[in-house]
Amino acid sequence: MSDIVITQDILDKLKQASTATLTTQLFKHGFRQQFLVGLNALNKDAGSFAGEAFTLRFIPSREDKDWDLGDLAKRGDDNLQWEAVEAIEPGKVLIIDSRSDPRAASAGNMLMTRLMRKGVVAAITDGAFRDGTEISRMSFPAYCAANTASTRPAFHRAIDMQRPIGCAGVAVYPGDIIVGDADGVVVIPRHLAPVLADAAYEQEMRERFLFTKIDAGQPLWGTYPPNEQTLAEYASWRAEQGK
Amino acid sequence: MSDIVITQDILDKLKQASTATLTTQLFKHGFRQQFLVGLNALNKDAGSFAGEAFTLRFIPSREDKDWDLGDLAKRGDDNLQWEAVEAIEPGKVLIIDSRSDPRAASAGNMLMTRLMRKGVVAAITDGAFRDGTEISRMSFPAYCAANTASTRPAFHRAIDMQRPIGCAGVAVYPGDIIVGDADGVVVIPRHLAPVLADAAYEQEMRERFLFTKIDAGQPLWGTYPPNEQTLAEYASWRAEQGK
Amino acid sequence: MSDIVITQDILDKLKQASTATLTTQLFKHGFRQQFLVGLNALNKDAGSFAGEAFTLRFIPSREDKDWDLGDLAKRGDDNLQWEAVEAIEPGKVLIIDSRSDPRAASAGNMLMTRLMRKGVVAAITDGAFRDGTEISRMSFPAYCAANTASTRPAFHRAIDMQRPIGCAGVAVYPGDIIVGDADGVVVIPRHLAPVLADAAYEQEMRERFLFTKIDAGQPLWGTYPPNEQTLAEYASWRAEQGK
Amino acid sequence: MSDIVITQDILDKLKQASTATLTTQLFKHGFRQQFLVGLNALNKDAGSFAGEAFTLRFIPSREDKDWDLGDLAKRGDDNLQWEAVEAIEPGKVLIIDSRSDPRAASAGNMLMTRLMRKGVVAAITDGAFRDGTEISRMSFPAYCAANTASTRPAFHRAIDMQRPIGCAGVAVYPGDIIVGDADGVVVIPRHLAPVLADAAYEQEMRERFLFTKIDAGQPLWGTYPPNEQTLAEYASWRAEQGK
Amino acid sequence: MSDIVITQDILDKLKQASTATLTTQLFKHGFRQQFLVGLNALNKDAGSFAGEAFTLRFIPSREDKDWDLGDLAKRGDDNLQWEAVEAIEPGKVLIIDSRSDPRAASAGNMLMTRLMRKGVVAAITDGAFRDGTEISRMSFPAYCAANTASTRPAFHRAIDMQRPIGCAGVAVYPGDIIVGDADGVVVIPRHLAPVLADAAYEQEMRERFLFTKIDAGQPLWGTYPPNEQTLAEYASWRAEQGK
Amino acid sequence: MSDIVITQDILDKLKQASTATLTTQLFKHGFRQQFLVGLNALNKDAGSFAGEAFTLRFIPSREDKDWDLGDLAKRGDDNLQWEAVEAIEPGKVLIIDSRSDPRAASAGNMLMTRLMRKGVVAAITDGAFRDGTEISRMSFPAYCAANTASTRPAFHRAIDMQRPIGCAGVAVYPGDIIVGDADGVVVIPRHLAPVLADAAYEQEMRERFLFTKIDAGQPLWGTYPPNEQTLAEYASWRAEQGK
Repeated sequence: MSDIVITQDILDKLKQASTATLTTQLFKHGFRQQFLVGLNALNKDAGSFAGEAFTLRFIPSREDKDWDLGDLAKRGDDNLQWEAVEAIEPGKVLIIDSRSDPRAASAGNMLMTRLMRKGVVAAITDGAFRDGTEISRMSFPAYCAANTASTRPAFHRAIDMQRPIGCAGVAVYPGDIIVGDADGVVVIPRHLAPVLADAAYEQEMRERFLFTKIDAGQPLWGTYPPNEQTLAEYASWRAEQGK
Repeated sequence: MSDIVITQDILDKLKQASTATLTTQLFKHGFRQQFLVGLNALNKDAGSFAGEAFTLRFIPSREDKDWDLGDLAKRGDDNLQWEAVEAIEPGKVLIIDSRSDPRAASAGNMLMTRLMRKGVVAAITDGAFRDGTEISRMSFPAYCAANTASTRPAFHRAIDMQRPIGCAGVAVYPGDIIVGDADGVVVIPRHLAPVLADAAYEQEMRERFLFTKIDAGQPLWGTYPPNEQTLAEYASWRAEQGK
Repeated sequence: MSDIVITQDILDKLKQASTATLTTQLFKHGFRQQFLVGLNALNKDAGSFAGEAFTLRFIPSREDKDWDLGDLAKRGDDNLQWEAVEAIEPGKVLIIDSRSDPRAASAGNMLMTRLMRKGVVAAITDGAFRDGTEISRMSFPAYCAANTASTRPAFHRAIDMQRPIGCAGVAVYPGDIIVGDADGVVVIPRHLAPVLADAAYEQEMRERFLFTKIDAGQPLWGTYPPNEQTLAEYASWRAEQGK
Repeated sequence: MSDIVITQDILDKLKQASTATLTTQLFKHGFRQQFLVGLNALNKDAGSFAGEAFTLRFIPSREDKDWDLGDLAKRGDDNLQWEAVEAIEPGKVLIIDSRSDPRAASAGNMLMTRLMRKGVVAAITDGAFRDGTEISRMSFPAYCAANTASTRPAFHRAIDMQRPIGCAGVAVYPGDIIVGDADGVVVIPRHLAPVLADAAYEQEMRERFLFTKIDAGQPLWGTYPPNEQTLAEYASWRAEQGK
Repeated sequence: MSDIVITQDILDKLKQASTATLTTQLFKHGFRQQFLVGLNALNKDAGSFAGEAFTLRFIPSREDKDWDLGDLAKRGDDNLQWEAVEAIEPGKVLIIDSRSDPRAASAGNMLMTRLMRKGVVAAITDGAFRDGTEISRMSFPAYCAANTASTRPAFHRAIDMQRPIGCAGVAVYPGDIIVGDADGVVVIPRHLAPVLADAAYEQEMRERFLFTKIDAGQPLWGTYPPNEQTLAEYASWRAEQGK
Repeated sequence: MSDIVITQDILDKLKQASTATLTTQLFKHGFRQQFLVGLNALNKDAGSFAGEAFTLRFIPSREDKDWDLGDLAKRGDDNLQWEAVEAIEPGKVLIIDSRSDPRAASAGNMLMTRLMRKGVVAAITDGAFRDGTEISRMSFPAYCAANTASTRPAFHRAIDMQRPIGCAGVAVYPGDIIVGDADGVVVIPRHLAPVLADAAYEQEMRERFLFTKIDAGQPLWGTYPPNEQTLAEYASWRAEQGK
């Protein structure tokens, strides 16, 4: 499925859509829950993002394998998290399956900074980040379920990357498109990204128009969703906007 | 019980009381938990409110009844949420029993805006709202347990309105008085509203006076709660204030 | 163990270390989880703190023992919370075992103000505080799991103080050193405080230096953790700083 | 929808199907979760059952409305649970929405006995029953999430009956068909009962045949699910059985 | 309060009452929840019991204090659990505050056997026991929330005994009367034991009589609760029984 | 690490040890939690087992990938669970990472029967099994957290096998030794199996002897753990047993 081409134009359109719009579009395609419930943006002003998923999976750490912090200096299987941070390409989204366990941090400000400097567009975990306050001041979208200072190896071991994972109860396949805004994160199955990009853009435009009506005091009936007359008004408005 | 008259003066006094003061007064009347634990204000600067409860109840949605989004355009049993938003009168509080399930949104910014424009004073759910960031910028008190973009029909069906509900573990009867501030929401059984309004006002005044003492370095003993001397000082202070 | 002397210099060094650094140091000493997962600072700008633990323990309240609010005026076993607030000395940290139950407040702004005026350096509960919004405006570090207005006796009774407790799943002995920053709270076993103070200070200095490298675009390998060359650069930098 | 006729033959076929078979059939019709996760049979030897849902809904109890046990002697709104037990007809299934709250019993052995003597076929709650050990010795299928002795009014008020409810996260409409066996309970939307009865019967027969193969050591491939040859063998076997 | 004399006759009457009857009686005295929700009897045939509470409290274990299993051979503060098992007198009930944490066992079959041989009447924890299957074959009432083999010091330290505790969310004071049957455990505040013993005995007798009516097919109205005629019939029946 | 030879003698010794003994031995080697908390044996009389772990991992299912039940007939990536059941060798233990999600079954009686007939020694999931009652009558050790009839693809997709997983919060590597008894399951890191087999056997023998003492009324002190005299008595007893 990763042979489906995702153009920058698709990513741009998805990025302009709100996560609310995207979950509605996904629901129309039969997807019930692609939103990562319980994860919050550390910096709500970091802006929206869209990018391909680069996955990293944790299992519980174990005393005999993970408790020598010196190992972090070595490359290889005992330090897959470092490998992942260096392997991920610019424009991608790092998304971590921390088994919804916030007892230790999935990463901290040092790795966040490295990711940001590399051009990675966002980092997500269904566990916790440490240095949350510092990260909340970075212009980098980071999402987590909690803010826990404890060092990762205390509870987690990075076991593989670019394998399918679950994150906050949602399946994520490498190459899926991840979109986030100040409200949270949505996972878009890769093959749906092109069609969703257009549909979401249209929905956003229409809702923007309808919002002006509701905001002006119109009742829901006839306006939201629009009846024929409202749709006609919308068509004129849309035409005026020349696009 | 809904023949008990709730005057604007009662609502004004309740609105000036903190939720902390009100739960203490309720406890004195034998009510252990009328605070909605786990719900937070989306906009902590939206101010306090007090109003009568207008209830809306959700049950889990079902594939054969709720998954055609086109139904939202029609009036009736398959779109009770729209009916509720249009039926609620100005000055009322919309309070939703979402079964403490945050997997889909109870409502979003479009319905919030409609409620605000109608003069509804607050909206509360024990589940989630979508568009939380936008709502947090509105001058409208909205409270929820989470911020989930997923569209309501994915997990919830509005099944009836103005029936007794549970919200965050607290019983809510239509006509109960709901009061909220930046700290959260408290449910006041309707028949207690008049007596609580006066008692809470008195407690607030007294605590304001006592706070100046504690803030000036007095120990708790003799001050909070006050002994006879402190009460006498309070009486003078209160008299000076001419009211 | 409380005969171990904790100097102001030790507290100052610990206070300068982040909770992330401290949990890493504790992990190196074999301590897996000394961070209080799930507790958040009410005021993230209140600054860091370090001080000795003064413990207070709650058990569930009971109708025959705790439901007469008038008792709060009396000293003694039926009002141990007031006794604790007056007994704790300046420089100490009040840390409450609320059994991770947020259904009623462990304390509110009146007691917080008294503690602050006395020179207590922080207050922590694994339950809830009431008046959370007011407390969030005080220059006083307060940490809790939730913001619940309900009055304490509705669900909690203070049963003893200065006994060993559990808080958010972590053992706390009176005299342990509690350190907090905007990210949360860590419990340091008293006998480890001196050695951790130095080690944490060194780690902080080193990470500050390494951060400049990562922030400038260096890859993790060789930099974080540092290889010999980076360590040499750090040694020069450290020497330049004259301390 | 309740004008769909449910014959005894339909109920008999559904009763012979396992809940595992029924959830598979429902999934084929697009229903993801109709099983009541977390509820267990008190008496695993009480046999299977099938019947129409008679719903009862609880909200949290409140000190001013529910704490006078004398009210249980009176008919009417303050004792809706008694009304429900007397109103339900033979052959029906009492299913209670206890808001997944096991802190007080939904009912005990006295009401269970009354239901059994009336010819009600099962009783289900997503909360708790009291007298669980006695009920486990009755020839009556009862399902609950916990065994709690505490009397119902301590935490629950029966607020209405024969309204749509949620039970263990599943929507239940009056007239839906409830089927249970030793493994648990499944909710069948009423209009699907006829078609499911036949399909489930067929699936059961086929699985019974296939089980003999697997039990005799056949691999899954070709057998479960069956390939053409296995299907042919099944056809012969089925024909031999003369039905 | 421990100067209230609890005679064997009181304990015998309480032991004959079901936990369902006792929670109803407690509710009539204003006690909402004295039942230990979530704890189950390991051996449902071990019979009922009643006895005075002997409390033991756990806090989380810590690497520097609890991880040397050799300490179990020494008396004193580092092995308070052994001290408690030897200190408790015959006829008492050991009740453990394990902070509702089942990650390690509160005790196993060796300590259970010692308690049984000493004449202790029951053992209760709101955490877990290990060797649960063996304990389930002993004629000794033991109650827990889970069955976990992990050794106690891995997560728990016994920190004091005969102090007030919370167990499964219920306050327990040393000397309170603990009563259990196959359905679970109820905590009776000591001063209420005498009055409850009589009231519960009367309720049990009455319910036994009323049960025969309901079991014979009588409706609830007029029977349960009884009207005047049923009460008269009960009076005759009671008189016949000569006691 | 899988080059460590695990002889049948090692497995036999481990199988004779209780899970309680094994967790104690693991704790002595620094492993805090290798027991699978919350999982229960469906058939407590199925006997103990020991074998090498064969792992299977689930991620959440997705509408576009998992909802065509016809796929179960095909081999390959879309039916990895069937592949796993056929790939696992006799003597191995199938252990499934179901992300602690019991909403759908990890397997049912058909797959359990196939595994049993193949000579697999046990099956474990941290989610649910369906057909739990039937499985509880098989002479096959199966462990799960719940009994849910819902078909697996409704919530789970088998995504890979023989990769490291987490199960009930414990890390499991292919080749680790899994041991279970009526009380539950423990995961033994492969390299520790030989040393644990001997140590556990010795501990079991000693505890069997000590139990006779405690059962005869001896106090804990001096007996459990044993002092020198008791150890001497044990040495004689052991010698008498000739092994």
